[in-house]
Amino acid sequence: MGKGMIDLSEMYTVRMRYPFKVENYVRYHGRVNFGQGGQAHDVMDVIKEFGMVPYEAYTGKTWDKDRHNHSELGSVLKGMIDAVIKRRNPTPVWKKAVDKVLDVYMGEVPAEFTYEGKTYTPKSFAKETGLNPDDYVEITSYTHHPFYEKFILEIPDNYDNSFYYNVPVDELMNIIDNALENGYSVAFDGDVSDKFFFGKKGYAVVPEDRLDTEAEEPEKEVQVTQKMRQEQFDNFKITDDHLMHLTGIAKNQEGTKFYYTKNSWGAESKGKERQFKGYWYMSEQYVRLSTIAIMVHKDAIPAAIRTKLNIK
Amino acid sequence: MGKGMIDLSEMYTVRMRYPFKVENYVRYHGRVNFGQGGQAHDVMDVIKEFGMVPYEAYTGKTWDKDRHNHSELGSVLKGMIDAVIKRRNPTPVWKKAVDKVLDVYMGEVPAEFTYEGKTYTPKSFAKETGLNPDDYVEITSYTHHPFYEKFILEIPDNYDNSFYYNVPVDELMNIIDNALENGYSVAFDGDVSDKFFFGKKGYAVVPEDRLDTEAEEPEKEVQVTQKMRQEQFDNFKITDDHLMHLTGIAKNQEGTKFYYTKNSWGAESKGKERQFKGYWYMSEQYVRLSTIAIMVHKDAIPAAIRTKLNIK
Amino acid sequence: MGKGMIDLSEMYTVRMRYPFKVENYVRYHGRVNFGQGGQAHDVMDVIKEFGMVPYEAYTGKTWDKDRHNHSELGSVLKGMIDAVIKRRNPTPVWKKAVDKVLDVYMGEVPAEFTYEGKTYTPKSFAKETGLNPDDYVEITSYTHHPFYEKFILEIPDNYDNSFYYNVPVDELMNIIDNALENGYSVAFDGDVSDKFFFGKKGYAVVPEDRLDTEAEEPEKEVQVTQKMRQEQFDNFKITDDHLMHLTGIAKNQEGTKFYYTKNSWGAESKGKERQFKGYWYMSEQYVRLSTIAIMVHKDAIPAAIRTKLNIK
Amino acid sequence: MGKGMIDLSEMYTVRMRYPFKVENYVRYHGRVNFGQGGQAHDVMDVIKEFGMVPYEAYTGKTWDKDRHNHSELGSVLKGMIDAVIKRRNPTPVWKKAVDKVLDVYMGEVPAEFTYEGKTYTPKSFAKETGLNPDDYVEITSYTHHPFYEKFILEIPDNYDNSFYYNVPVDELMNIIDNALENGYSVAFDGDVSDKFFFGKKGYAVVPEDRLDTEAEEPEKEVQVTQKMRQEQFDNFKITDDHLMHLTGIAKNQEGTKFYYTKNSWGAESKGKERQFKGYWYMSEQYVRLSTIAIMVHKDAIPAAIRTKLNIK
Amino acid sequence: MGKGMIDLSEMYTVRMRYPFKVENYVRYHGRVNFGQGGQAHDVMDVIKEFGMVPYEAYTGKTWDKDRHNHSELGSVLKGMIDAVIKRRNPTPVWKKAVDKVLDVYMGEVPAEFTYEGKTYTPKSFAKETGLNPDDYVEITSYTHHPFYEKFILEIPDNYDNSFYYNVPVDELMNIIDNALENGYSVAFDGDVSDKFFFGKKGYAVVPEDRLDTEAEEPEKEVQVTQKMRQEQFDNFKITDDHLMHLTGIAKNQEGTKFYYTKNSWGAESKGKERQFKGYWYMSEQYVRLSTIAIMVHKDAIPAAIRTKLNIK
Amino acid sequence: MGKGMIDLSEMYTVRMRYPFKVENYVRYHGRVNFGQGGQAHDVMDVIKEFGMVPYEAYTGKTWDKDRHNHSELGSVLKGMIDAVIKRRNPTPVWKKAVDKVLDVYMGEVPAEFTYEGKTYTPKSFAKETGLNPDDYVEITSYTHHPFYEKFILEIPDNYDNSFYYNVPVDELMNIIDNALENGYSVAFDGDVSDKFFFGKKGYAVVPEDRLDTEAEEPEKEVQVTQKMRQEQFDNFKITDDHLMHLTGIAKNQEGTKFYYTKNSWGAESKGKERQFKGYWYMSEQYVRLSTIAIMVHKDAIPAAIRTKLNIK
Repeated sequence: MGKGMIDLSEMYTVRMRYPFKVENYVRYHGRVNFGQGGQAHDVMDVIKEFGMVPYEAYTGKTWDKDRHNHSELGSVLKGMIDAVIKRRNPTPVWKKAVDKVLDVYMGEVPAEFTYEGKTYTPKSFAKETGLNPDDYVEITSYTHHPFYEKFILEIPDNYDNSFYYNVPVDELMNIIDNALENGYSVAFDGDVSDKFFFGKKGYAVVPEDRLDTEAEEPEKEVQVTQKMRQEQFDNFKITDDHLMHLTGIAKNQEGTKFYYTKNSWGAESKGKERQFKGYWYMSEQYVRLSTIAIMVHKDAIPAAIRTKLNIK
Repeated sequence: MGKGMIDLSEMYTVRMRYPFKVENYVRYHGRVNFGQGGQAHDVMDVIKEFGMVPYEAYTGKTWDKDRHNHSELGSVLKGMIDAVIKRRNPTPVWKKAVDKVLDVYMGEVPAEFTYEGKTYTPKSFAKETGLNPDDYVEITSYTHHPFYEKFILEIPDNYDNSFYYNVPVDELMNIIDNALENGYSVAFDGDVSDKFFFGKKGYAVVPEDRLDTEAEEPEKEVQVTQKMRQEQFDNFKITDDHLMHLTGIAKNQEGTKFYYTKNSWGAESKGKERQFKGYWYMSEQYVRLSTIAIMVHKDAIPAAIRTKLNIK
Repeated sequence: MGKGMIDLSEMYTVRMRYPFKVENYVRYHGRVNFGQGGQAHDVMDVIKEFGMVPYEAYTGKTWDKDRHNHSELGSVLKGMIDAVIKRRNPTPVWKKAVDKVLDVYMGEVPAEFTYEGKTYTPKSFAKETGLNPDDYVEITSYTHHPFYEKFILEIPDNYDNSFYYNVPVDELMNIIDNALENGYSVAFDGDVSDKFFFGKKGYAVVPEDRLDTEAEEPEKEVQVTQKMRQEQFDNFKITDDHLMHLTGIAKNQEGTKFYYTKNSWGAESKGKERQFKGYWYMSEQYVRLSTIAIMVHKDAIPAAIRTKLNIK
Repeated sequence: MGKGMIDLSEMYTVRMRYPFKVENYVRYHGRVNFGQGGQAHDVMDVIKEFGMVPYEAYTGKTWDKDRHNHSELGSVLKGMIDAVIKRRNPTPVWKKAVDKVLDVYMGEVPAEFTYEGKTYTPKSFAKETGLNPDDYVEITSYTHHPFYEKFILEIPDNYDNSFYYNVPVDELMNIIDNALENGYSVAFDGDVSDKFFFGKKGYAVVPEDRLDTEAEEPEKEVQVTQKMRQEQFDNFKITDDHLMHLTGIAKNQEGTKFYYTKNSWGAESKGKERQFKGYWYMSEQYVRLSTIAIMVHKDAIPAAIRTKLNIK
Repeated sequence: MGKGMIDLSEMYTVRMRYPFKVENYVRYHGRVNFGQGGQAHDVMDVIKEFGMVPYEAYTGKTWDKDRHNHSELGSVLKGMIDAVIKRRNPTPVWKKAVDKVLDVYMGEVPAEFTYEGKTYTPKSFAKETGLNPDDYVEITSYTHHPFYEKFILEIPDNYDNSFYYNVPVDELMNIIDNALENGYSVAFDGDVSDKFFFGKKGYAVVPEDRLDTEAEEPEKEVQVTQKMRQEQFDNFKITDDHLMHLTGIAKNQEGTKFYYTKNSWGAESKGKERQFKGYWYMSEQYVRLSTIAIMVHKDAIPAAIRTKLNIK
Repeated sequence: MGKGMIDLSEMYTVRMRYPFKVENYVRYHGRVNFGQGGQAHDVMDVIKEFGMVPYEAYTGKTWDKDRHNHSELGSVLKGMIDAVIKRRNPTPVWKKAVDKVLDVYMGEVPAEFTYEGKTYTPKSFAKETGLNPDDYVEITSYTHHPFYEKFILEIPDNYDNSFYYNVPVDELMNIIDNALENGYSVAFDGDVSDKFFFGKKGYAVVPEDRLDTEAEEPEKEVQVTQKMRQEQFDNFKITDDHLMHLTGIAKNQEGTKFYYTKNSWGAESKGKERQFKGYWYMSEQYVRLSTIAIMVHKDAIPAAIRTKLNIK
C-alpha cells in the first residue's frame, strides 16, 4: 500500500490489536467472534492509534526465531477471557494479565527503536512513512444493502463493526483495475479455501461445472454475476478466510485475465506451493466471486465512482 | 414519546423486527446475540421501515386473547436457525419458513386496516401520527469512549450496531430532567433486576452498603459517580434488562428525588406488584447508576448539550 | 407393488407422514426416534388415511426443480420440536407452525388434481388405483419372538409400533420367491451399507471371510443361518438403512442365485453407480442376512405359510 | 386386585422385569425410555411369564434390611448399557453381566420357596392364588384416538408398547365406581406431583383457579371435561408419575366425592405424610383429570361398556 | 505451629505452590485435581523449597487492599492450561505466561525484604524462625490401609501424592490431646460443610439421629467408631474442605469435650459468624468423625505411638 | 523376566488389578486416569498380593476362545463407577457388582488349580516359580527430578503412584545393555505409536529430519540427547502406550545398534505385521528417545549405578 510497507512488522499490528479484541469479546459477554483473523482495516486502525514499527524492531517471536505459535496464544487467551466472562464479576486486573501473556508470547513492544540510524517511536515512525490511515477505504459489493452507501459488513471477523462502501461488482472490478493501473496495490480479503483455488498449482478459477468433483483443471469458466456473488455469500460458500495483496494484471494464452496476487505467507509456504514464492494468479471471475471486500487508497478509485460514494 | 403512542401495537414492532434479527444471526453464523430483547431504537427502525399500526389492528396474539408466548416462539425460531447455520449450505426457503412461523404465532400483519373510521396502511398511519423516527436519539454515558461523540454501545442487545451519543452522567440527568419538564417522556433502557429494585414495594434506590444483604429497606443512598457507573457496567453488574418510560419527577418526605416510571408490563404484573399498576419510583441515584441508555426527542435536549453533540 | 405405483408421488407420503412423526416424538417427550427414514408400512398407512397422488400432482419440490433438501427440513423441524419439548408447556399453535414449515419446504398438498384428464382427490385417486393397503403385510424372521405370531419389531425406524409377522428365514425366502414368481414385487427393508454391498459394482454378497478386509471381490459365500441373522441383528451389524424393491431372480455363471433389486434413488445415483440405473443384484445369502423385513401382498404368500400366520 | 396380593413381593416384579427393559433399551439403540417406573401391566406381564412370590420369599433387599436403593441400581445399569450401545458391536455376555448386577443389588430370585408350610415355584404360587393376568385390562380416556378401540398409549413409561382401551371420561369414572362398589380395587396410574395434590394434608383437588399460586386450600373445584383432560395430557401437565390403588369412595361434609387411595409407599412415607399411613383422598375431579389410565378386572367393567369395548 | 507463624504470609505459600500445581496438572494431561485447596503439607513443602515471608512483606493482594479473588485467578489459570493440554504440542513459554498471570493477580514475590529492621531473603527468614518443615508429619486414621504405616491418602486435594501416617482413631485423638496439652497447636484438615457444623452458632456436634432433618440443636451425640469414620469417608460424606488449627480443649456444662478451633477466615467471616471472631468449638465426636488428617510436630506425638510409627 | 513366565496368565494380572483400579478411581472422585493400560509394576504388585497362575489355568476368556473384549468391559465398568461417583452416596454393594461383572467377562479366578500334575493356589504357584517381585525395580531418566533418587512418575497410567528410579539416559542404556548381556530381559514401557515406529516393516528409528513427512525410510538418525528426551516428554510427544520386552542386541550392515524386542501381541498381530511374529528391532536412538521407563531385576543393574541408586 506504499513502498515503506515492505519492512513493516505485521506482528505489531496483531499485538496492538489483541487488547481491543479481548475487551470487545468480554463486553459482548462472548457473543461475538474471537478469532485470530481480522480485516484490512485492523491494520489501519492500529496505525492510527499506535503507529507502526519495522519488522526488525518487533518480530513478534520470542521462543523460536522461525515460528509463531498464535494458535496456542489464541487458545490460552480465550481460556482466560471465557473464565472472566463466566464469573460475571470481573476483577480490575484481568486485562493486565492478558497484556502480560501477550508480552510473553509475542515480546514486549518497544517504546522507541532505531531504524536506519534514526530513533523513532511507533507514532513518529508512522508519521515518517507518510502513510495516512484515513486515506484508505474498504469496499464491498452485496445487494442486501443499497449501493453507494456504507454499511457494517456482517461477517464474524468484522467484530469491530467497521463500515464498508457498497458498489456493484462491475465497479468493484473497475476500482481494482484502476488502482493497479495507477500503481496502487489492492488489499484483497476473500476466500482461498474454495475447492478451485488450486494453491498447489498457483492459480484459481471458477469452472463452469462446480459440482463436477472430478474435474481437476477445468477449461471453461462461468461468468460471475452479482446474483451469484450474493448467493454464495448468503450460503456461507464464500467466506473471508485470507488477506492478500493484488499487485498486477496478466493474461494467459487463451486471453483469460488474471490478477497477480501476493500472499503474506509467501516465504513460509510448504510443499509444492513453495515454488510460487507466495504469488498466485486469480482469474477475473474468481476475484469477482471470492472477494469479500477490498481496501484501497481513496485516490485509486475512479473519480466517477468516488463521487457516487461521496468520498472526499 | 408522543400522544398517539398510547394505542400502538408493540407486537407489530416485534413482528416486523424478527426477520431482521433472524437474518442478522445467520449472517454472523450465530456469533451474535439472539434474544427476545431489544433497544429503544428497534421501535424507531421499524417505524421508519414498516410504519406502525394501532393495537386493535394487530394484537400479536393468535391462540389466547390474554397472553403472548414469545418464549416458545423465540425457542422455536432459534431451533430452526441454529439448524440452518449448522448445515452451512442453506436453502433459499428457510427465511420464508421463519416468516410463516411468525405468522402462526403472532398473526399475519395487515396490509391495510381501519382506525377510527379511516383506512390506513402501516406507513400511512405512521405518517398520520406525525411521529418522525429521525427525531429521536439514544444517549448513554460511559468513559470507555470519548464524550460528545457517537459510538456503537457494546451490549449484546445492540445486535444491530446502533450508535449512541455519549455524555457525562450529570448531563444525562440534565437531559432527562429537561425532557420531563418540557412534557417529553424518556425511554429508559436499564437494569431492573438489581437487588435494590424493590419491585414489590414499588421503588428502587442505591443503598450505601450494597453488600449488607440483610438490609431490606435501606435509609441512606450512595452518591453515584461516573466511575461507579463505569465499574458496574464493566463488571456486568448493570445490564440492559428492561425498557420503561420515565414520565415524571417526585420527591418523598425526606426530599429524595424520584422518577416516576411506567413499566410496559403494567397491567399484567402479578402478586404484590399489581398494586402499583405498572408504575414505579426510581430514585435519582438509581437512575444515575442503572440507566444503560435513554432515547429522547432531539428537541428535549438542552440546547447547550445538543450543540456539543452536534445534533441538528 | 402394483402397476400404478410407477408414477406415484413418494413425497406425498413423506409430507403426509411428517405431522404424525412430529406429534409422536413430542408425545414421547423426545424419547423415540425422529429420523427421515421410515418403514414400508408408512406408505400404506398414508394411503389408508390420506390417499395417494401421482408424482406430477405433487413433486415435493419448491425451490429447486431437481433436488429435495430433506436434510435441512429434518434439522429445522427437530430444532422446533426439541424447543417445544424442552419447555414442557406447549402452546396450541406449534403443530400449525410445523405444518406451515412443511408447506414451505415441500409445497402445499393439492386438495384436488387432474390426472390424465380426470379430476381426483387423493382419496378418490387411491380408490381408483384399486390398491388396498390392508392387503399388504410386513414379515420378518427373528428368534427373539415366537414364529408365526406378530410382534412390534424393535428398530428405531418402527417409531409407530407396527406389527410384523415372524417366520423362519427359509420361509421368508419362500415368500419372496413365491411372490416374484407370481408377478408380485417385494418391498425390501434392509442393510445396504454393509461392506460387501458393492454399490459401485452393482452387486452384494456374503463372503466367507468377512474379516478379511482386503478381499475386494470374494469368490465364496457363507451359508447364512437363522442364528447368524439373529446375531447380526442383535449386534447392530444389520440395520434398516434402505427401502428397495425386489423385482426378479437371476443366476450368474457359477449358478449363484441373485435377486434383481430396484433402488429408489435410481436415476439420481452418482459416479460409477450411475451405470446400473438404480438396479443391483443381491445374492440369495445377502438377502437372507440383510433383510430386516419385507412387505408383500397377502396373496403373494404361499398358502401353507399364510395359514400358519393366520392371515385371512 | 385380589386378597392374596397383600403379601406379594413387588420387588420380584421389578427384578424380573429389568432384563426385558434393558434388552428393549438396547434394541432401540437407546431411543426409548429407560426409567425405574412402569405401568400396571408390567406386573401382570411378569406374573404371566415368571409367576409371583410372597414378600417374605423375596424382599429385594440385600444390604440394608430397611431400604432399597433402586436409584443407584438404575444409574449403574444405565451406565452399563449406554456403554454397550455406544460400542455398536456388543459381546454376548453383557446381558449376563446385567443379571449378575441385578442379583447383587436385589438378591437372587428363589427357584423354590416355602410359604405357609407348602413349597412353591413362582409359577405354581401364581397358579395357587388363582389370579389370572389375562383377566385384567388397562383403560384410558383420550380423544387423539377413537373411543372403544385399543391403542398404544404414548407415554414414555409404556416402553413395551402395551395397548389400552379408550373410553370417554364419564365411562372411565363409571368403571371405577362400578369396580369399587363390587369389591374390586382399581389400579390408578396418574399424576401425584401436581401442585394441588396436597400430600402433606392427605387430599387432592382441582381448584377453580389453578393459576392462583397463593391459594393454599382452595374451596371450589372446577368441573373437569374431556377437553381439559386432553389439553393437560398434550401439554405434559399430567404425567404418569405414580401407581396407587383406589380402594373406596367417601364424601366430605360439603358432599364432595373422594376416592380413598392406597399409596404403595405407605409405611415408608416421611414427615407429615406419615400420619395418613399411606392413604389419601383424591376428589372426583382430581381423578377425572389426573388419571392417566386404570387397570381393572374385566368383570369389574359394567356390561354395557364391556360390550362396546368388545372384551370377552 | 510456632510463635513466629502468626504473622506469616499464607499467600506466599499459595503463590509459590501454584507453578507446581499447574505443571503437575499438565503432566497428568488434566487427569488430576486442580483446585484452590491444598493440604497442610503444602505449606511445609513451600517453606522447605522457597522459605517463608511475613505477611507485611507479601500480602498477595494487588487490586483491593481487603480482598483476594483467587476464584477468578483459579478459573483463568485453568482456562490457560486446559488450552495448553488440549493442543498436545505446547510451546516452551506457557509456564512463563502462567507466572506472569500469578504476578498480576497476587503481586511479585520479593527477593529480599526488611522485617523488624533486618533484611531477609525468604530462605534466610525461614531459617531465622527456626521452624524445620521436616519436623512435621501428617497423620490420618482409615482402615483401608494397615495402621502404623504411611500411605498416599486418596483425596483429590492430595494431588502431589504425599504420605500420611495411619493410626487408629483413638490414637489420633491421643495425639491431638497430647499436642494441645504440651503447647503445640494441631493443623486440622477436615469437613466443615457438614449439616451439623453450626457455623452460625459457633459449634459442631454429631447428633444421634443425623437423619432427623428437623432437629436444629440436638442434645445427644453418637459415639463415633472407626467403622463410622471409614463409611463416611468411603461414601464421600466426609471430605477435606477446610484447614483450621485446633488450639485448646474445653468442656461445656454437660461435660462434653470440645476442641477450640481457630479458623483462618477469622476476621473476614460475615454475618452472624462474625461474633465468634474466627473461633469455633468442635465436639470430640465431631473431631473423631470429621478429621480427614492432622499435621503435628513430631515431638507432640506420644512416645509410644511415635515408636510404633517409626518416626525418628 | 524368568523362564517360568512364558506360560503365565497375563489376564490373571488384569483381573486381579481391576478392583484396585476401580476403587482408586472412585476414591479420587474420578479425577484420576481409568484406562485399560498399566505399568510393569502392576504385574509385580499383583504377584505380590495375589500370586500368579499359568495361562492354562486362567485364560481370561469366557465367550470366545480366541478373543478378549476388554474394550467393552472397560466401558461397562466405567459406566458403572461414573454412576456411583455421580451419586455421592454409594451403597456398600457396588464393589461386589463390579466383581461379578469382571467374572462374567473374564471368568472366575481359580482358588486352586493343577499344573503339571501338582495342585497350587496362585500364591503357592508364585512361590514355586521363585520369582520375587521385590527384586524388580523401575527406572526412568528425566531431568525434572534429581538423578539417583526415586520419584512418582507423572504419567496418567501410573495411577497408583509408584516410584521410579531416575538416572541419566546414558546410564539407562548401560543398564539395558548390562541386563541383556547377562541374560536378563528388560521390560520396556514406551512409545510405539511414533510415526517412525515402522510396525509394518519391523523396525523403528529416529530419522534426522522428523518433520520431513515424506521420507519413508530415512537413512540417517539423530543423536538423542537428554534434553531431547525431556522436551518430547514434556510436550506429550513420547507417551507410554505399550509394554514390551527387550530380549537381545543386534547390528545391521551399517553398524547401527538395534534392540530385539518381543511384543506381547505377537501371535495376534494382523496384516503385514504378522511376518515378524511379534518381534521388532528398535534402534539405539529410538530406545533412548522413546523409553518412558524400564523394569529390570536389581541384579541386572551395573554395580556402580546400583550403589548410586542405593538399591540393596
